[in-house]
Amino acid sequence: MIDIEVLRRVAQTIAERKGADPSSSYVSSLFHKGTDAICKKVAEEAAETIMASKDGDVGHVVREVCDLWFHSMVLLAHHGLTVEDVLHEFRRREGISGIDEKRSRTGG
Amino acid sequence: MIDIEVLRRVAQTIAERKGADPSSSYVSSLFHKGTDAICKKVAEEAAETIMASKDGDVGHVVREVCDLWFHSMVLLAHHGLTVEDVLHEFRRREGISGIDEKRSRTGG
Amino acid sequence: MIDIEVLRRVAQTIAERKGADPSSSYVSSLFHKGTDAICKKVAEEAAETIMASKDGDVGHVVREVCDLWFHSMVLLAHHGLTVEDVLHEFRRREGISGIDEKRSRTGG
Amino acid sequence: MIDIEVLRRVAQTIAERKGADPSSSYVSSLFHKGTDAICKKVAEEAAETIMASKDGDVGHVVREVCDLWFHSMVLLAHHGLTVEDVLHEFRRREGISGIDEKRSRTGG
Repeated sequence: MIDIEVLRRVAQTIAERKGADPSSSYVSSLFHKGTDAICKKVAEEAAETIMASKDGDVGHVVREVCDLWFHSMVLLAHHGLTVEDVLHEFRRREGISGIDEKRSRTGG
Repeated sequence: MIDIEVLRRVAQTIAERKGADPSSSYVSSLFHKGTDAICKKVAEEAAETIMASKDGDVGHVVREVCDLWFHSMVLLAHHGLTVEDVLHEFRRREGISGIDEKRSRTGG
Repeated sequence: MIDIEVLRRVAQTIAERKGADPSSSYVSSLFHKGTDAICKKVAEEAAETIMASKDGDVGHVVREVCDLWFHSMVLLAHHGLTVEDVLHEFRRREGISGIDEKRSRTGG
Repeated sequence: MIDIEVLRRVAQTIAERKGADPSSSYVSSLFHKGTDAICKKVAEEAAETIMASKDGDVGHVVREVCDLWFHSMVLLAHHGLTVEDVLHEFRRREGISGIDEKRSRTGG
């Protein structure tokens, strides 16, 4: 089993690049470009995940989901959020089945 | 700090629903519908993440990224993969900056 | 060759449904739900177009592109725009190659 | 009213670039890269359309819908289809309300 703390280290690295020189790294340049550039990457990686899935190429699916989660984490940091907030939301939903969760949300 | 193991518990719950009766839960029904239905959810949640980001509604961003990761995990399970495979990929990339990683992928 | 005016008739029908009772038609209900609901449909139809393309199912590609254009036209109408505005933009770009157009946009 | 035939001229130009040298134009290079590259552009333009809509920037919405339709037409040509096939599908659906059309598709 892989050390799950890797997600926190990645989030930490992303956060450190937030104020850095745009030319110093890919992530710093994304932060500098702003909301639309980061959102566009999230959309792109979602599309690539779908295409990898349609190809049935499992290695490719893993790499694209990794890209998708990575760029989601850049978006979180862009909004002053972190992976902790997403984990917290997963915790909140624990014990609620998907269907019940959907109901609780749409039910007001 | 939230117990990061929640991701493994969610992955476990998703895996258990894979062979279950489609009417027993939302996730079982998604597995039953297959690749296109699951991929469509990934695309939808990516779009909703983008819209929440454009609204600057941070609470909404967290809930949509949670939905996006959740449905990514359903897609992983659909392909016989798990969150461990994504964590493994994150580990492999550690120490490689985003820009260098892009280069190593496109350059090869 | 098909009567290309069908696009104008469809745009006209969409426009007529803008102020109508939300329960009177699918399009009226979309207008009533607003920007996010319409945008979500555009994202969904784009994802379904991609999946149809990956399947190499040409009949399905046609139906999904039709759905994508239809919901783009609902979005246009939502913003007080019409298919004429898109045709006008196509006209403006005529004689400019894709690459040159990209250059003229990014260069300006 | 704009000459609606512009769509046929654009489709014609796209078709001519299908067999051309990839370095000769943006569209030729897209055809050369293949399905995934073209589908990725469709996804990107859909995401940009959504972001323009969320900004309420109507000029931007028009340009992004134009980009989305343009890349849909490249995808059609990639599959040996054309704008005529989409117009034909619009014609087929005429007189069927959105809700009834949805019903006829899901019911069949």
